[in-house]
Amino acid sequence: MRPVDLIRQKRDGAEHSPEEISALIQGFTRGNVPDYQMSAWLMAVLWRGLSNAETAALTDAMLRSGTVLDLADLPGVKVDKHSTGGVGDKTSLILAPIVAAGGLIVPMISGRGLGHTGGTLDKLEAIDGFNVNLSTAQFRRVLREAGCALIGQTAEFVPADRKMYALRDVTATVESPSLICASIMSKKLAEGIDALVLDVKTGSGAFMKRPQDAEQLANMMVETGRRMGKRMAALITDMDQPLGRAVGNSLEVAECLEILAGARHPLSEDLRSLSLELSAWMFRLGGRASGLDDGRKLAGELIANGKALAKFRQICRLQGAADPSRLPVAKFTSHYTAASDGFIARIQCEQVGLASLVLGAGRNKQDDVIDHAAGLELRKKTGHAVKAGEEIATLHYNDPARLPEALRLLREACRIGPNPPAGPRTLVKKIIESAPNLTPTPNLNPNPNPNPNPNPHESED
Amino acid sequence: MRPVDLIRQKRDGAEHSPEEISALIQGFTRGNVPDYQMSAWLMAVLWRGLSNAETAALTDAMLRSGTVLDLADLPGVKVDKHSTGGVGDKTSLILAPIVAAGGLIVPMISGRGLGHTGGTLDKLEAIDGFNVNLSTAQFRRVLREAGCALIGQTAEFVPADRKMYALRDVTATVESPSLICASIMSKKLAEGIDALVLDVKTGSGAFMKRPQDAEQLANMMVETGRRMGKRMAALITDMDQPLGRAVGNSLEVAECLEILAGARHPLSEDLRSLSLELSAWMFRLGGRASGLDDGRKLAGELIANGKALAKFRQICRLQGAADPSRLPVAKFTSHYTAASDGFIARIQCEQVGLASLVLGAGRNKQDDVIDHAAGLELRKKTGHAVKAGEEIATLHYNDPARLPEALRLLREACRIGPNPPAGPRTLVKKIIESAPNLTPTPNLNPNPNPNPNPNPHESED
Repeated sequence: MRPVDLIRQKRDGAEHSPEEISALIQGFTRGNVPDYQMSAWLMAVLWRGLSNAETAALTDAMLRSGTVLDLADLPGVKVDKHSTGGVGDKTSLILAPIVAAGGLIVPMISGRGLGHTGGTLDKLEAIDGFNVNLSTAQFRRVLREAGCALIGQTAEFVPADRKMYALRDVTATVESPSLICASIMSKKLAEGIDALVLDVKTGSGAFMKRPQDAEQLANMMVETGRRMGKRMAALITDMDQPLGRAVGNSLEVAECLEILAGARHPLSEDLRSLSLELSAWMFRLGGRASGLDDGRKLAGELIANGKALAKFRQICRLQGAADPSRLPVAKFTSHYTAASDGFIARIQCEQVGLASLVLGAGRNKQDDVIDHAAGLELRKKTGHAVKAGEEIATLHYNDPARLPEALRLLREACRIGPNPPAGPRTLVKKIIESAPNLTPTPNLNPNPNPNPNPNPHESED
Repeated sequence: MRPVDLIRQKRDGAEHSPEEISALIQGFTRGNVPDYQMSAWLMAVLWRGLSNAETAALTDAMLRSGTVLDLADLPGVKVDKHSTGGVGDKTSLILAPIVAAGGLIVPMISGRGLGHTGGTLDKLEAIDGFNVNLSTAQFRRVLREAGCALIGQTAEFVPADRKMYALRDVTATVESPSLICASIMSKKLAEGIDALVLDVKTGSGAFMKRPQDAEQLANMMVETGRRMGKRMAALITDMDQPLGRAVGNSLEVAECLEILAGARHPLSEDLRSLSLELSAWMFRLGGRASGLDDGRKLAGELIANGKALAKFRQICRLQGAADPSRLPVAKFTSHYTAASDGFIARIQCEQVGLASLVLGAGRNKQDDVIDHAAGLELRKKTGHAVKAGEEIATLHYNDPARLPEALRLLREACRIGPNPPAGPRTLVKKIIESAPNLTPTPNLNPNPNPNPNPNPHESED
């Protein structure tokens, strides 16, 4: 089967066999299928879509383009979380130590921020000495010792995704749920996990603005994981205002340390609550809790008894950081204040993320250098009353030239209205859960979990 | 505007401006827009289509990628004919000398055959000494002297089309009416013509099997030409059996010479009639005949008084061929005979074209060498009565090893039924005519024809 025949098939709406998809991806990764054929196929996929079987086959083919970790020698269930990205989204730094402290293995490979959304690796690198660039051997060593390691992707994992994403980026073929799903899932499944919890964001600050798009992507990822023999759950969660109160790398790490230490700041409650919820789901999928209530309780206990914070300190130490509270502090702070009395009607995520980026916390281009100290802290969130002149956000920065643009973006982001906005937004909007396929793809999951719940189902929580 | 933004626009169904299309095509031709972006855009075009305005802008941009002939110094209206291709389709060799003998200028740039359809250049090259590879200066000289020249495309014309077609061929993006239209029209309009008659084939031997597809393409080409200030007409014609009785280069030239000499072989009547009809349309669009009847009469007279044949001899002489009847003759002939009594129910074009190709008359690949003597002559056509053992076709060949496969293809092509098939097929199924746009694209048509008929209309004939 020649590539042009596969393009024609997809163009005409036909379904590919797993063998055809595997041949296409292998040919592309090895350079035998040229970019110009791949981009035509990708556009045909945006047009016609991929079936669930095709999406799973694509995920599988991409996954197999590089190393797939085999962690069978580590005792315990391997579980991870993936978020589709947001502003102030720092749950990974809280839930990873909680879940590892609870006895599961968390082999977390994360990405960097680009544009208005932050990245876990950038946050970790705010910690003095923290090394995210471990070799696979070092990664295994930390995992074995601490039950959790937090690293960046190395060249050996999923080369097909890197090559394909670079092409999608310049050919307007990013926005396909199937391609997004295969990209995310291939990278996560390369970690050698048994179970995965997805945090699919929706709202003004999310990649998927509309709940139905978020739900479609969530369903597709859960179904893909199920077909590949993984236990899966997806939470559709709100990203209509920043999560917690800190945006910017050092500031976000400090907020996480506070929560791990048991503090309960009212403006960080959404972050704390979502982190515990996601931890509970990881415990449930990993077999450490029979129900969600047990999972939530366990997560709360691991904070209360200091084990989660101790676990985070241990991970930091094993990855080169003696003390996670050694974080850079910015030279200057300024205040963004309310122009009038009223209630915060809206805090637009995208502009808040861009304000933080402008102060130095983020990247416009992949090779921009980050100022880990820069960022902002919210003093008010949606629904809060404010008086004219009262502080809404504190800005942290080293370069005063950047302040005016950041303030302008915050003025754009925040709207003050005369009345409190309609009732509070639900943080978790929907949950999609699935037990793994009982006949997993051969060789992909040599030791599938026992499966107490064979019927995939959806539930509201 | 970056290429990725144009791809995104088209992917989402938006309409490009002429400037955007021009920038894309210019960038692609110069190598600034890479193949992988062009192929994604092409697939988005297959998905979303192009508006009439976009198709005209694409034609214009492709046309301007290379030399556009300016024949303003030659007195007389310049007119050409384009056929979408068929089997035994040799009308160009008949109508070009007729129309030139009638006082119009026919600057005909033609193509070669590929697959089951023949090409005008290959037919001309069957004539001993005929040179189709004239420089632009030589082309002008022959045109000035004879009013007609018959050449192949040189590298200076429409480079965008060559580059784009090579890409479309390997990315399953050939089958777009808009792209087909722009490819044909840009090449034809580069000839510097004022008027164009299109012969759009439909039926089993045509590229467009379904009449509605042929009609869509015809309408699009007529509309594109109109927008570019050209007088246009399209005839949708039958290609359900070979046109005339000869298939193969020498044999086809001989059939044309016979018609130009005034002979009327019953199996060549369809060819003769279509050639006169197309000539009549060229006379009408070129202002040499007030109505079609006048045009048909003029064409008939130019055959009867020997002027058309003399014109063909003159063109041949000017292009290096002393005598057009010096044609190679094959060493062997064989007969394909009827297996039973009955009526010819069907002669499938594609198989007849392939039988001729197999005998040596055509190409499977672009660099295959042609045997100009090879081919076949039909002795029966659809609807004729036959007796078992009676000859249906004579095969001409130099390589006996090729005979069995050709006979097998003819057996596939011809079906004999017990009863005569339903009534004769109409040769010209529909006519689409259009007067040129009264506000032509600037600089494209410095001397538009006076326009006696400003309202585009469709008519049945």
